[in-house]
Amino acid sequence: MYKVYGDYNSGNCYKVKLMLNLLGIAYEWQAIDILKGETQTPEFLAKNPNGKVPVLELEDGTCLWESNAILNFLADGSRYLPSEPRLRTQVLQWQFFEQYSHEPYVAVARFIQFYLDMPEERREEHAGCLKRGYKALDVMEQQLQRTSFLVGETFSIADVALYAYTHVAHQGGFDLEGYPGINAWLARVAGQEGYVGMLG
Amino acid sequence: MYKVYGDYNSGNCYKVKLMLNLLGIAYEWQAIDILKGETQTPEFLAKNPNGKVPVLELEDGTCLWESNAILNFLADGSRYLPSEPRLRTQVLQWQFFEQYSHEPYVAVARFIQFYLDMPEERREEHAGCLKRGYKALDVMEQQLQRTSFLVGETFSIADVALYAYTHVAHQGGFDLEGYPGINAWLARVAGQEGYVGMLG
Repeated sequence: MYKVYGDYNSGNCYKVKLMLNLLGIAYEWQAIDILKGETQTPEFLAKNPNGKVPVLELEDGTCLWESNAILNFLADGSRYLPSEPRLRTQVLQWQFFEQYSHEPYVAVARFIQFYLDMPEERREEHAGCLKRGYKALDVMEQQLQRTSFLVGETFSIADVALYAYTHVAHQGGFDLEGYPGINAWLARVAGQEGYVGMLG
Repeated sequence: MYKVYGDYNSGNCYKVKLMLNLLGIAYEWQAIDILKGETQTPEFLAKNPNGKVPVLELEDGTCLWESNAILNFLADGSRYLPSEPRLRTQVLQWQFFEQYSHEPYVAVARFIQFYLDMPEERREEHAGCLKRGYKALDVMEQQLQRTSFLVGETFSIADVALYAYTHVAHQGGFDLEGYPGINAWLARVAGQEGYVGMLG
């Protein structure tokens, strides 16, 4: 059985949890507390030398890391990952967009506001995260006003990747009222068969 | 013929240039100057709503963005991208590592030191980039002391992705003397048939 090393509060870990539930794959969840330093122990670093969750451990002990790489591994051959080369590239395009232009701002704003309760010395950083996070949300909104999902009319792991932190963006101080495309899409994702909530 | 919108000084753009040369694919290069704001014009934003280079324009006008997604598109079916699921996932793993844990520090340190000539107000940021960049280099070094390339003994687009900014890391102030695994690997990549330099 697959074993996931993850933190329930982490959107990156939630991507893997959501994917496994969508696919109906049984798994064991090993809770790892980032704030307690559990990703920096020698045992954990042997699984992921970069010291981050999630890690997916296969039955033979092989460990795969990086949430979006894991999504590609799990979804390969399923309806959640198109095999047509351009569509597959567009799925990756949105996943790299997520890790470079979205997560570092939308997730970090949430971390500062929701988990650290907005300490004075990080307020300026939080404001910067909001500014750049809204820019990423604008790019998503443009696409989602044209198509039902990020890559055309079919739900894919691109949506899983971007749903993870977008659906809790309000916890970081983002106001999504001006984003009708994103709001309709959030509801469409939550309506998928096999959907499970972040903390559910 | 493929058309690449790119900036010769950008490692992200160099990844695409190197890949096209390794594969021996003819292409047209449209120079885009980031510092002059050429990625923020309405014409460019129609190609990539996220306003970043590189963009790969296909013959029918389809535009693909995100350097690592483009590498996957170009290398699919070639010897530079394994088809075996775990190996393919490990290639992606290193590419996502590159965009999240390496590029934001190694590339940004280079930008601040080499292009901006280290302005006083960005010295603290530069020091932070060095610290986190060395951490990423440590993770690479661990792997490259065990295997010839990032994913086993075969050169892949994982190496293309990480070579781009690692081989110019010294321009950002990184000293690679303590990284024998990385240095041997840099030479191995530069020795590949079809290799082309960043500004060559």
